[in-house]
Amino acid sequence: MTRKIIIIGAHAAGLDAASAARKTDRSAEITLITKEKKTAYSRCGLPFVLGGHIATFDDLTVFPERFYKMMKLNLLTETTATNIDAKAKTVEIQDKNGNKETLSYDNLVITTGADPFVPPIKGRDKKGIFVVRTIEDGEKINKALETAESAVIIGAGLIGLEVAVACLERGLKTTVVEFLPYVLPVLLDKAMADRVQKMLEEKGMKIIVGKGAEEILGTDKVTGVLVAGETIPADVVVVATGVRANVELAKNAGVELGETKGIKTNLRMETNIKGIYTAGDCAETINLVTRRPTMSQLGTTAVKQAKVAGINAAGGYSTFSGALGSWITRLFDTEIGGTGLTEFMAGRAGIETVSGTIVSKTRADYFPGAFPIRIKLIAEKETTKIIGAQIIGGEEVTQRINALSFAIQNEMTVKELAKAETCYAPPVCETWEPMVLAAEMVLRKLR
Amino acid sequence: MTRKIIIIGAHAAGLDAASAARKTDRSAEITLITKEKKTAYSRCGLPFVLGGHIATFDDLTVFPERFYKMMKLNLLTETTATNIDAKAKTVEIQDKNGNKETLSYDNLVITTGADPFVPPIKGRDKKGIFVVRTIEDGEKINKALETAESAVIIGAGLIGLEVAVACLERGLKTTVVEFLPYVLPVLLDKAMADRVQKMLEEKGMKIIVGKGAEEILGTDKVTGVLVAGETIPADVVVVATGVRANVELAKNAGVELGETKGIKTNLRMETNIKGIYTAGDCAETINLVTRRPTMSQLGTTAVKQAKVAGINAAGGYSTFSGALGSWITRLFDTEIGGTGLTEFMAGRAGIETVSGTIVSKTRADYFPGAFPIRIKLIAEKETTKIIGAQIIGGEEVTQRINALSFAIQNEMTVKELAKAETCYAPPVCETWEPMVLAAEMVLRKLR
Repeated sequence: MTRKIIIIGAHAAGLDAASAARKTDRSAEITLITKEKKTAYSRCGLPFVLGGHIATFDDLTVFPERFYKMMKLNLLTETTATNIDAKAKTVEIQDKNGNKETLSYDNLVITTGADPFVPPIKGRDKKGIFVVRTIEDGEKINKALETAESAVIIGAGLIGLEVAVACLERGLKTTVVEFLPYVLPVLLDKAMADRVQKMLEEKGMKIIVGKGAEEILGTDKVTGVLVAGETIPADVVVVATGVRANVELAKNAGVELGETKGIKTNLRMETNIKGIYTAGDCAETINLVTRRPTMSQLGTTAVKQAKVAGINAAGGYSTFSGALGSWITRLFDTEIGGTGLTEFMAGRAGIETVSGTIVSKTRADYFPGAFPIRIKLIAEKETTKIIGAQIIGGEEVTQRINALSFAIQNEMTVKELAKAETCYAPPVCETWEPMVLAAEMVLRKLR
Repeated sequence: MTRKIIIIGAHAAGLDAASAARKTDRSAEITLITKEKKTAYSRCGLPFVLGGHIATFDDLTVFPERFYKMMKLNLLTETTATNIDAKAKTVEIQDKNGNKETLSYDNLVITTGADPFVPPIKGRDKKGIFVVRTIEDGEKINKALETAESAVIIGAGLIGLEVAVACLERGLKTTVVEFLPYVLPVLLDKAMADRVQKMLEEKGMKIIVGKGAEEILGTDKVTGVLVAGETIPADVVVVATGVRANVELAKNAGVELGETKGIKTNLRMETNIKGIYTAGDCAETINLVTRRPTMSQLGTTAVKQAKVAGINAAGGYSTFSGALGSWITRLFDTEIGGTGLTEFMAGRAGIETVSGTIVSKTRADYFPGAFPIRIKLIAEKETTKIIGAQIIGGEEVTQRINALSFAIQNEMTVKELAKAETCYAPPVCETWEPMVLAAEMVLRKLR
């Protein structure tokens, strides 16, 4: 009998789950359900369209229409999954005209993702206040930026800073307000974050840290933001204070949530209900360092989980063991990235650390065009295993993060990294690779 | 009593040994002996001065004069070590005026390096024929290129191709002749090498593979090279057919050579004679994949060995366990690199392999400026461990090689790499990292 697979959600996780399921079972009936009109576009690309680096929002569409045909996927857009009956193995759906239908499944994959969380700031319902999640969000902001002269971004996480850079690139007076004491507070330690802040300030960005947005001002339309008694004028306000997993549908169906309030799974991305899988921003992940549940909510984690969920939902066997949370961005010409735990987060998890930071260059001293590069490495004190890294630099930061991600995944010790072999040629790197020098620095502190 | 350390050689290995020795023993008497006038410059930079990317040969000097003072190193330039008496623990030296002297040591580090090997081609003693090893070599070639219109480079290894690119960049008609069947024959497998050859040919380089230079033509000065009956005109001929370790001095002192004809050492870079250490291009290395002796002769291996030799010679304890031979270069805008074994070399070592090659992009599909990237991964069939990688691409190849070097050093399996976490952002990489896709490709072949 033909296996019926329903996937709720049709973005990165949904599509990668569908794709993996199709490769596992060529005859399965695979249906994707999404509220949105457009599917499977890159949310991560939105700030870069705003900044003018990518021509149009349509360019963000990763899977063209022919993909769905080729993979024989039934795609239901502008359709809401209103209820899951786990006992009857059915999903109740409603299209944009209000028509209801009940679909039955053998296996279900929940990739309902997450929605932006807007904190209860006074005045948050005014016109001119935006979040950054969908193409529609992007289009709205884009339109508003055309006539705006000033912008306030609330939240100095990755998306907040990327959007702030886009605003600055478009010539707006741009202010970022971060409630926590430094930028990228979950991703960097303070000293590294301060470098990023300084770089952005030198480009003309105003950054206020350690203070919350108290009120969004204006009568009908936003005119400014009140921060610690100061009024910052703003024609546009973008709130980028994180996302919350969409788990209501799953919860109502009896799917168990974890301590992170994300959907709890086993190694095969299966929930407590047999035959119901999950992946992406709504799914809980195990942090590979702390071995504790976490919400990764990164595109890379989403597609890896989705592949595993899709294979299993189609009768195959695959496991996902967790995430480090490796991340990267480029703000102006500076690449900033990290993997594993920050020292702060390690401390919060009760892990004693030793860390070291070095500044080096990306090319041989005598080769023109070298950029400075700053690397912080964090090791666990007892085992001396590398558990985290943060890098700020001008080139090849991404793949250094990947190299250090491999190092952490392989439980390399500081000494092993200090002895590790790297390659060298004057135009592209130094004889002593900065990652190795950083390990040497930590090693000295361990002696 | 003050420890006396003599280091014969004052380039990458000599200086890094001296530096490590000084850090280990602050009061040791450290003497460096070198035939050359200039010390510790980057040989790897020579082709890039020829190509005009680096302004002058003097820029290649890595350690300024104040370094020697700061580190309290006695530097004897234009001085030849003529004999080592291992029993008496002395080194006989002769300066440029013929004055002889005998120096005594407690510990000795031999970093005599290697010299270019010019095969016995008929006519090899003519004017206009050069090798690429010293700054003097570089200066001579540079001068010759000023008036030359055509160049033939014999040998399509790293240095051969780098010099050929420099010649082409300077507007010379440039031909490369390689006796083996493809370019970079020790470093790449044929299909990858063919891509490099094609790229270089598209830039205007003439490349002849599988044929040797039979004769260098001309009466006094070179006028051409005879290859398989064809005369290729040349005002300049550069021979880059590899180097031979300088081991005579060591051998005469009773130091044992290995099967590679390099100096044999233990893990501490100590030779068969207690107190005599070695490092760099004259020293044998263990290949981390085959576990067999090899001659690495790379700058990175040299400095790592030298650090170990220097620490031990100064009474410390450090070990060097071997090398993968990770390498990288940039030819025009293409970065080419590798680590571990090629499939061909693995076969020669009796290792059964499974390999896969993929072509992907360096940035998100929709982000402008992405380069194609080609990755070949080689795994050992039984254990499925990664044992080699080759990459050709436009950006961040260097650090991908480092990441894969870490993967091999950590004995990652193909499956582990296919599941490994990487980071993602549209301007700098793809959601599915090409290295991971390459692993996936090998995995499919293993099923």
